[in-house]
Amino acid sequence: MHKVAIFGASGYTGAELVRLIATHPELEIAALAADRRAGSEMAEVFPHLRHLALPRLARIEEIDLGEIDLVFCALPHATTQEVVAALPAGMRVCDLSADFRLEDPEVYAHWYGRPHQAPALQAEAVYGLPEFYRERIRTARIVASTGCNAATGIFAMRPLIEAGVVDPDEIVIDLKTGVSGAGRSAKEAMLHAEVSEGFHAYNIGRHRHLAEFDQEFAKAAGRPVSVRFTAHLLPQNRGILATCYVKGDPQAIHAALAERYAAEPFLQVLPFGQTPHTRHVRGSNFVHLGVSDERQPGRATVVAVLDNLVKGASGMGVQNANLMLGLDETAGLMLAPVFP
Amino acid sequence: MHKVAIFGASGYTGAELVRLIATHPELEIAALAADRRAGSEMAEVFPHLRHLALPRLARIEEIDLGEIDLVFCALPHATTQEVVAALPAGMRVCDLSADFRLEDPEVYAHWYGRPHQAPALQAEAVYGLPEFYRERIRTARIVASTGCNAATGIFAMRPLIEAGVVDPDEIVIDLKTGVSGAGRSAKEAMLHAEVSEGFHAYNIGRHRHLAEFDQEFAKAAGRPVSVRFTAHLLPQNRGILATCYVKGDPQAIHAALAERYAAEPFLQVLPFGQTPHTRHVRGSNFVHLGVSDERQPGRATVVAVLDNLVKGASGMGVQNANLMLGLDETAGLMLAPVFP
Amino acid sequence: MHKVAIFGASGYTGAELVRLIATHPELEIAALAADRRAGSEMAEVFPHLRHLALPRLARIEEIDLGEIDLVFCALPHATTQEVVAALPAGMRVCDLSADFRLEDPEVYAHWYGRPHQAPALQAEAVYGLPEFYRERIRTARIVASTGCNAATGIFAMRPLIEAGVVDPDEIVIDLKTGVSGAGRSAKEAMLHAEVSEGFHAYNIGRHRHLAEFDQEFAKAAGRPVSVRFTAHLLPQNRGILATCYVKGDPQAIHAALAERYAAEPFLQVLPFGQTPHTRHVRGSNFVHLGVSDERQPGRATVVAVLDNLVKGASGMGVQNANLMLGLDETAGLMLAPVFP
Amino acid sequence: MHKVAIFGASGYTGAELVRLIATHPELEIAALAADRRAGSEMAEVFPHLRHLALPRLARIEEIDLGEIDLVFCALPHATTQEVVAALPAGMRVCDLSADFRLEDPEVYAHWYGRPHQAPALQAEAVYGLPEFYRERIRTARIVASTGCNAATGIFAMRPLIEAGVVDPDEIVIDLKTGVSGAGRSAKEAMLHAEVSEGFHAYNIGRHRHLAEFDQEFAKAAGRPVSVRFTAHLLPQNRGILATCYVKGDPQAIHAALAERYAAEPFLQVLPFGQTPHTRHVRGSNFVHLGVSDERQPGRATVVAVLDNLVKGASGMGVQNANLMLGLDETAGLMLAPVFP
Repeated sequence: MHKVAIFGASGYTGAELVRLIATHPELEIAALAADRRAGSEMAEVFPHLRHLALPRLARIEEIDLGEIDLVFCALPHATTQEVVAALPAGMRVCDLSADFRLEDPEVYAHWYGRPHQAPALQAEAVYGLPEFYRERIRTARIVASTGCNAATGIFAMRPLIEAGVVDPDEIVIDLKTGVSGAGRSAKEAMLHAEVSEGFHAYNIGRHRHLAEFDQEFAKAAGRPVSVRFTAHLLPQNRGILATCYVKGDPQAIHAALAERYAAEPFLQVLPFGQTPHTRHVRGSNFVHLGVSDERQPGRATVVAVLDNLVKGASGMGVQNANLMLGLDETAGLMLAPVFP
Repeated sequence: MHKVAIFGASGYTGAELVRLIATHPELEIAALAADRRAGSEMAEVFPHLRHLALPRLARIEEIDLGEIDLVFCALPHATTQEVVAALPAGMRVCDLSADFRLEDPEVYAHWYGRPHQAPALQAEAVYGLPEFYRERIRTARIVASTGCNAATGIFAMRPLIEAGVVDPDEIVIDLKTGVSGAGRSAKEAMLHAEVSEGFHAYNIGRHRHLAEFDQEFAKAAGRPVSVRFTAHLLPQNRGILATCYVKGDPQAIHAALAERYAAEPFLQVLPFGQTPHTRHVRGSNFVHLGVSDERQPGRATVVAVLDNLVKGASGMGVQNANLMLGLDETAGLMLAPVFP
Repeated sequence: MHKVAIFGASGYTGAELVRLIATHPELEIAALAADRRAGSEMAEVFPHLRHLALPRLARIEEIDLGEIDLVFCALPHATTQEVVAALPAGMRVCDLSADFRLEDPEVYAHWYGRPHQAPALQAEAVYGLPEFYRERIRTARIVASTGCNAATGIFAMRPLIEAGVVDPDEIVIDLKTGVSGAGRSAKEAMLHAEVSEGFHAYNIGRHRHLAEFDQEFAKAAGRPVSVRFTAHLLPQNRGILATCYVKGDPQAIHAALAERYAAEPFLQVLPFGQTPHTRHVRGSNFVHLGVSDERQPGRATVVAVLDNLVKGASGMGVQNANLMLGLDETAGLMLAPVFP
Repeated sequence: MHKVAIFGASGYTGAELVRLIATHPELEIAALAADRRAGSEMAEVFPHLRHLALPRLARIEEIDLGEIDLVFCALPHATTQEVVAALPAGMRVCDLSADFRLEDPEVYAHWYGRPHQAPALQAEAVYGLPEFYRERIRTARIVASTGCNAATGIFAMRPLIEAGVVDPDEIVIDLKTGVSGAGRSAKEAMLHAEVSEGFHAYNIGRHRHLAEFDQEFAKAAGRPVSVRFTAHLLPQNRGILATCYVKGDPQAIHAALAERYAAEPFLQVLPFGQTPHTRHVRGSNFVHLGVSDERQPGRATVVAVLDNLVKGASGMGVQNANLMLGLDETAGLMLAPVFP
C-alpha cells in the first residue's frame, strides 16, 4: 500500500479523493489536512464518509510527511504554490488546483492577476492529462492535474487539431457545468434558491481556462490557436458538457477521435450521430464523446461529457497518482456511473 | 369582455393560457376543450387552477362557437391544420402549434414529413411574433404564434441581420431549454429520474425549428441564411436560453438591439457585458438580452432568455390575441417574474 | 394609491413584496430600504424586477416616512424590535419577522434567547393571521404577520381543536419546507450542491415555531396544548407541506375544516381523501387542505400546503396590509399558481 | 466466479444490479433478460453502462439457465410468481419484487387484489432482510429481498419493538421517498415537470407496504401491531427517509438501536441528537439512523435513511445473494456514498 496525504480535505474534491481511495486497492489515506476544520473528524465535515476509518483532520504543518509517498493538493487556486514550495524536496505532489497548469509564469500572471509564487517549481511540473502526457507524468515530481473545463474541451478538440481535420481558427466551445465545480464555500450566487430552476452564462470571453486551451491547442497546432469559449452554470451538482462547433469533415472528425481514443480505458467515442449525456458518466471517471454532422457540408458538432468532480478533478488526480506510483492506471477508477 | 375558447386545455400551454387569462381584465374563458379529458373539471386535470370558476372540459365538437370571439389552439403539432379548417368561416384563431408557422407548404412538408393539410388557410396565416409583425397580426384571422426556440433565436439575431451588423453566414445558436417545452405526454425520456441532474444535446443539425430561422432570417437578410443551431435539454421546468456566437462589432451589436427594442414593453436589453438568467424571467412575458465582447476583435456573444411557456407559448398567444381583439397589447401580461 | 415602504428589500421576502405589489391596484412602493445594498438599484440586487420603475435602495434612516402610509418590515428576526421602536408614533407596520408574534415577552425570551427589546410595542401588536384575527388586524398599528411554518400548522389544526374534533394531546405535525424559507444569506448548508438531491430533518423537538403553535393552540383549546413538530428541508425553492396525524373522526374533521373555511377566499378544502401538492399553490396566496382516513378507526391525517414566500410571508403581509388600509382583502392577491 | 442472470434488466433496479456487480469480485453477469427490449445491447437501454462487456438483452425463455448459479428477478410486482414457478427446480432466486414478501397468501391477496399464483413456492421463500434473517437466507432457495419503504421503517422500528422500549400501538412512520422508486415506466405523474419543485403525500392509510410492517412488527411484538404510515414523493432521484414518532425513553431507544446494530457493517447509528440526511447514503448500501428527544418527556423521534435503489433494492439483493452463495456478505457493497 502506498500512503497518501490529502491537503484540502474539507472541500468537495478532497472528499471525492477520499471516496475514490476508499475502495482503491493500493492507496491508503495516511493524513488529511484542512486548516479551517483542523481537529474535526471527517465524519463531521462529510457525514457520507462516516463508515470509513480515517485520520482526524489536521493543519498542514502538523502532518508527519515522513511516511507519505504522495501528497494530493486539493486547495483553492492561488494557495498551492506556496504550500508546495514548502514541502520537503522530492515529495511527489498531485495538485488539483490551477496553480501549476500554465507552463509560462507570465501567462499565469496575466490570467490570475498575481505573480507566480514558485516559478522554479513550475519548470518541473507536468500538465496532468494522462491521455496526452502519460509518460512524462510517470516520472514527474509535480503533476498539475487538469481541471474539468479544460479537460472537457481538450478531450474533444485536441486530437482534431493534431490530426488537422478541423480549422483551428473557427472553433466555438459552448460549455455547461454543474455547480459542484464552484466548490463548497458559501456564496449567495451558489445557494439552492439562486441556482436551481435557472441557467446562465458567465465570464464570457474572459474565463481563465481559456489560458489552458491556448496552451494545449497551440501545442497541437504548432502555432497559436484562439478558440471562443463560453461557460454556463447548470442547475445540477455534477456533470460538464461541451458543445464544440467546428469546420471540418464530420466523418473524418469521428474517425480521428475514435482512432485516437481506441486504446484509452476511460474515453468512449459513441457511434456517429449519437449524443452523450452528463447523467451517463455521473460519479465515474469515464468520458463520452459524440460527433454529429450539420446540414451545412463541412461542419460538425462534437459533444463531450464528464463528471467534473471525478474525471474533471479527483478521478483525474487518482489516475495521475496511479501513473506516478507505478500502479495500474485504472486502479480504483473502474466504478460504474451512478444513474439515475 | 371578449369570450375565448381554448382547444387543448389539458396540456401545459393550455393550462398556462388559463393562468394568464384568469387575471386578464378583458378576456373571459367561455369554453375549454380537451378530447382525452372531456367531461372532467379543470381542477381534476390541473389542481392548481381549482380556485377558478371554469367551464367543464369538453370535446371540440361539443363547443358552441356562436358566442366565441377567438379560439386559442394549444393542440399538438400536426393536428391543428384539420381542426382550424373545420372551424366556421371567419372565426379568429390564435394557434400555438407549429402548424401554420411556415409560409411555404413545401417547406412544411419537408420538415414535418407530411403534406400540409390546409394550404389555403396557410396563405392567410400571419407569423405571430408581435415585435416584428404587429400590424399584420391586428387584422389577421389566423395567427401562428411563435414558439419558444424560434422566438428566442429570432429576438437575439433578427435585428442584427436586419441592421447588417453581423455576418449572417457565421451564426451559431446554442440553445438550452427547460423540460416543459416537451409537453405533458408521458415519455420515458422526460421522467424526473431521467432528466434531473443531467444534460444533453438532441437533434443536432436536424431540429425542425431551423425552418423558422431560415424563413425569418432570410427575410431580414434579403437572401438565404443558414445558421447552425443545437438544442439541449435543461434539468429545469421553465426557461430557455440561447447563446449566439456572431461576427460583428460588439458595441454596434448592443446598440442595434437596444435601439430596436427601446419601445418594446417586454424586451429588456441589459447593459453591455451583462448576461441574462432564465430564472429572472420565470413565469413572465419578459425577454432579457445581453451582449458581450470576446477577446477576439470583431466577435461578440449575444444571450437571450425567456420563459418557454409564457413568452415562448401562452404569453405570446395572449399578446397576439390582445392585438387581434384591439386591446392593449400588454393587457394581462405585466405579471412580474417569480424568483426564486 | 396608498404609499408603502419596504424595509429589508434585498431579501427574498422583500423581493416577493415588490413582485406582488407590482400588480396591486392600490399600493405603490414609495421607498425601499436595504442597509447592506443601500445605493444600488433594485435591478442589480434582483434582476427579475428590472422592468419596474422602483426607488433606489436606501438606508432606513434615509427614508422620508412623511409620505408613507404603511411600512412592511422584512428584516431578519431579532432586528425588527429596535427598528419598529424607532419609527414615528402611529406609523403602521406590517412585520414579516418573528419579533412581535409571541404575545408574552417572557415566552419570546425563552425561545429566542434574548430579552424582548420593545415589550410596550408588543402589547399593541396583533398576530397577523387574517383568517383568525381579521377584525383586530383592521385597526392594529403593528401586525405580526404569521410565518410559513406556523401558518401551515395552524390552518390545518386550529379549527379542529376549536371544534373539539381532535384530541389536542395527540397531535403530530410533520412539516417539510422549501429552501427559500432560509433566506438569501450565504450559508454552506444552503448551497445547491448541499441541498439538492437530498432531504433531512432539523431542530427536532426544539424548533422555535413551536412557540407559536403553543400560543395559538392554547387559545383554541382553552388550556395548554403541546404538539409534536418536526421540520424537514425539501430540495425545492418554494412550498411547505404539513402532514398532521390526529385522533378524531375523519369525516367530522373534514366537515369542520370545510365549514370553517367555506367563506375564505384563499383556503381550499379538497374533497375527502384527496391530498394537496405544494406545486399546486406555487407563487400564489392559496392554501390547499386535504383530509384522509386511516385504516385505524378514529384516526385521520390532515395535509396542508402553501407557498412559504407568498401565503407564508409576503402574500400574508399584503393581505394584512389590505385589511389595515381598508382595502379589499384579496386586492393584488388573486394571481393563479404557477405550474409547472 | 459465480454466474448470475438478471431478469428485468431494462428497469432501474436491473441496471443498478449491473452497476454493483460490475465491480463485485465474485459475481459475473452471464445473462440479461428484458422482454420488451430483447435483442438490444445494454448500452442502448442504459448508456451509462456502455464501458462494460455485457451479454445482449434476451427474452427470459431464451436464456440457458444451465450455467446460472442464481437468478436476480427485478421484474414488476405481480409478474414474478409465474416466472419463478417456471424456473428449473432448485434454481436459486433473489427476487426484488413484492411477490414473495408476504408469508400468508391470504394477506397477499388482500393487499394486492389478486390471488397468489405460487403459494407452494411462497412457503419456501425467506424474507430478505439480512440484518434480521441472515441464517435463513444462507440456505434459502427463494429470497424475497426487502424493498425500500419496508426496509427503512423496519430498520428504525423493529429493534425497538423487540426490546420493548417503545409503545407499539403509538407508532407513526412519516416516510418520504425519491422518484426512482416508481421505476422507469412512462407515467404522466412522474414527468420532471410534474415532480420537480413540488412535494405531496399519496396512498394515505392504504399503502401496500403496510402489510410488511404488520408482518414484521407482529413478529417483533409477539402480537398484532398496526402502525400509521404515510408515504410522500420527494423531488429527488434517490433516497428515502422515515421520520418515526414513538413513545418511549429517548436514551433507551438510542441505546437499543446502537446495541442492535453494533456489529452490522451497513448500519450506522449516529450520536444521540444527530439527524441523518438521504444525501449522505446516496449510491451506497449504508443506512444512517438518528434518535432525538422531544420536549415532551417519554417521547422520541427516530429518523432512518437509505438509498432506495441500493439498500432498498439492488444492494439489498446483492447482499442476499452474497449470503446465498456463501460469499462475504459485504462483497462488492462497500462503495462509498456519492456526495454531492
